Amino acid sequence: MDQTTGFLGLGSMGLPIARNLARAGHRLRVYNRTAAKAEPLREFENVTIAHTPLEVAEPGGVVLSMLADDNAVTQASEGLAEVLGPDGLHISLSTIAPTTATALAAQGCGFLSAPVFGRPDRAESAELIVLSAGEQRHRERARPLLEAIGAAVHELGEDPASANGVKLAGNFLIMSALEAMSEAFAFAEKHGVPRELAAQVLTTTPVLGNAYRGYGAAISSGAYEPAGFALRLGHKDARLVAQAADRLGVPMPIIDLVANRFTAAENKGRGDLDWSALAIEVFESAGLDQADPR
Amino acid sequence: MDQTTGFLGLGSMGLPIARNLARAGHRLRVYNRTAAKAEPLREFENVTIAHTPLEVAEPGGVVLSMLADDNAVTQASEGLAEVLGPDGLHISLSTIAPTTATALAAQGCGFLSAPVFGRPDRAESAELIVLSAGEQRHRERARPLLEAIGAAVHELGEDPASANGVKLAGNFLIMSALEAMSEAFAFAEKHGVPRELAAQVLTTTPVLGNAYRGYGAAISSGAYEPAGFALRLGHKDARLVAQAADRLGVPMPIIDLVANRFTAAENKGRGDLDWSALAIEVFESAGLDQADPR
Repeated sequence: MDQTTGFLGLGSMGLPIARNLARAGHRLRVYNRTAAKAEPLREFENVTIAHTPLEVAEPGGVVLSMLADDNAVTQASEGLAEVLGPDGLHISLSTIAPTTATALAAQGCGFLSAPVFGRPDRAESAELIVLSAGEQRHRERARPLLEAIGAAVHELGEDPASANGVKLAGNFLIMSALEAMSEAFAFAEKHGVPRELAAQVLTTTPVLGNAYRGYGAAISSGAYEPAGFALRLGHKDARLVAQAADRLGVPMPIIDLVANRFTAAENKGRGDLDWSALAIEVFESAGLDQADPR
Repeated sequence: MDQTTGFLGLGSMGLPIARNLARAGHRLRVYNRTAAKAEPLREFENVTIAHTPLEVAEPGGVVLSMLADDNAVTQASEGLAEVLGPDGLHISLSTIAPTTATALAAQGCGFLSAPVFGRPDRAESAELIVLSAGEQRHRERARPLLEAIGAAVHELGEDPASANGVKLAGNFLIMSALEAMSEAFAFAEKHGVPRELAAQVLTTTPVLGNAYRGYGAAISSGAYEPAGFALRLGHKDARLVAQAADRLGVPMPIIDLVANRFTAAENKGRGDLDWSALAIEVFESAGLDQADPR
């Protein structure tokens, strides 16, 4: 902690993250384009406010960035790599394209991808879920910083782009859940159950948490037998949903998609496997083996 | 508990459910088409095995059924209603169409829809999530039985079909999660992260549980401001997923669907709302108001 750490980007996520780093005793030099957003950090003796982005960096030092998108990160890091040099480390917390991470890693300073899961309230309480991918020495150097802002740090290997791939996969799961919940609540409401009640029953019980943990493990390991719930029964339920949705006038694009997966899986003789075996169809369509090919 | 309760259907769900009722001290008369499946219940002194389905019923009594599909329930209940009579109660635990529940409720005996969430292991440990809908007196009469088999009993009102609507909505959410996880794991694996690791990071952390609880409440109450994560940023991430999926050859039908939702929402001026505001589009498409219309 004898070194000063740079921090770029004090938006709704960056500010609470920087605050937690300061609370943990890290000496920080922070910068934000809109200077007023740095004001709340003045209360910390160990934080100094910079007037230009490059000012937060020093040769061989560490800079974290939490910026809005790929362009912002790419622009900010142009001069950064030059100042940091080969012994420096840029830790990118932003959600950016895996290809952007690969490009940033080639800029001449050390680079670590460390995108995070969690909204501002989790950032505030230092309970983010942090992904970390890059060279092992970079991951080790970054760990005390990342542990100060998160409830867990998951290390995903040597290739920085991997962390961005998993972060996007996670955001995709959340988007899918938003769409699916919206469809499900509309469906329930057309059956006379107010959406608030449907939300309470369906999302505060362990039903879905159990489904992700249990089925996530089954799908990833290919454990589709013995069936806890046979795929042909899942198909039957998909038909019931589709029929009721049609009868009550609820457009539910996901049910059509899933029903077709079940049809394909049954045609391929998978009706007696667990309904999670619809995953085989998805992996095959991606050119992936059922068993992990690597 | 001085009355004998009938039980029809001793499959992978019915058997452990009947066993928990017997353990709780309820006197049971059980029937299964394949008689051998009743054998494990012989150890209970308070269980008798019937030779015909109608034998489990008595005038004014209670019969629970846990059968494979709508046809099986409809067939079984034909004679049942006649034997049970107007003071009797048929409690249907099966996942059937809401319209089938409505038809069964008109057969002349009391009828309660009580479909359950949980696989055989949860049935075994009496940790099912039980839905209950029908006349209040039926729900009250059924409660001791339902509490003996579940961790929670959610009462959903007077119309039996409501419980089946919510049960199908829940199964739909699980199917959607199966499809979304399969797509997400394929995506992560194409980024060099084995699906087992992706599953572990994405499904055993609180990320998704928090998303369902937090966003479920936001969507059902229409609380899209202030944005924890702006819809236009969600749209940006949807584009990043779609681009990476295309580049790496991962068909991801859900991302196309969700990206189009975000596009429509932005076109309607909702870019600064929380990304969960994609729900407005879904509710509108179902002819439902943003505020609960009832």
